[in-house]
Amino acid sequence: MRIGFTLKLNPDKIAEYDESHRAVWPEMLALLKQSGISQYSIFRRDAELFLTFTCEDFEKTWSEIEKSPVNARWQAAMAPFFAPMAERKPGERFPMWQEVFYLD
Amino acid sequence: MRIGFTLKLNPDKIAEYDESHRAVWPEMLALLKQSGISQYSIFRRDAELFLTFTCEDFEKTWSEIEKSPVNARWQAAMAPFFAPMAERKPGERFPMWQEVFYLD
Repeated sequence: MRIGFTLKLNPDKIAEYDESHRAVWPEMLALLKQSGISQYSIFRRDAELFLTFTCEDFEKTWSEIEKSPVNARWQAAMAPFFAPMAERKPGERFPMWQEVFYLD
Repeated sequence: MRIGFTLKLNPDKIAEYDESHRAVWPEMLALLKQSGISQYSIFRRDAELFLTFTCEDFEKTWSEIEKSPVNARWQAAMAPFFAPMAERKPGERFPMWQEVFYLD
């Protein structure tokens, strides 16, 4: 399945966010791969982020990532960069976007 | 290069947009492929669209697509579904998002 969701940055933290994502920790990249994530792009326009990747089962994959101490350290390092998310629908972990078209 | 941009739908045309994208014309799919587009996903949340694909050179690819009568017919069919785009920056064809992270 191809996943898409949005997050928001603090407008004064954009440069730091970009910089940290040019140098994601090797152990964080390894965790993502081990958890079944591939073709993971993060797009940004101003302070808005669109995150998209491929995985077998989003809930399973993300739950596995969240159990990792590496992820806990990464999220703690990233937390100051984020603004509150857009409104979520019931049961949503993030504001999720549905794939309505795909061409390989 | 991996491209990302956003478009907006008329809120009362969402179902028709989704339906048309479950049955994109074979000649339109062929045009996209011939123009060098691959891994093309369109994500939707409510009336917002995020379009992302891979190509060698976005301006060259899109200019080629725009020369095609197939594309002209497709865009004419889709036009009633779209609301005005979000504000564009100087020189932008669409509201473009920059890829700030990629993991294969």
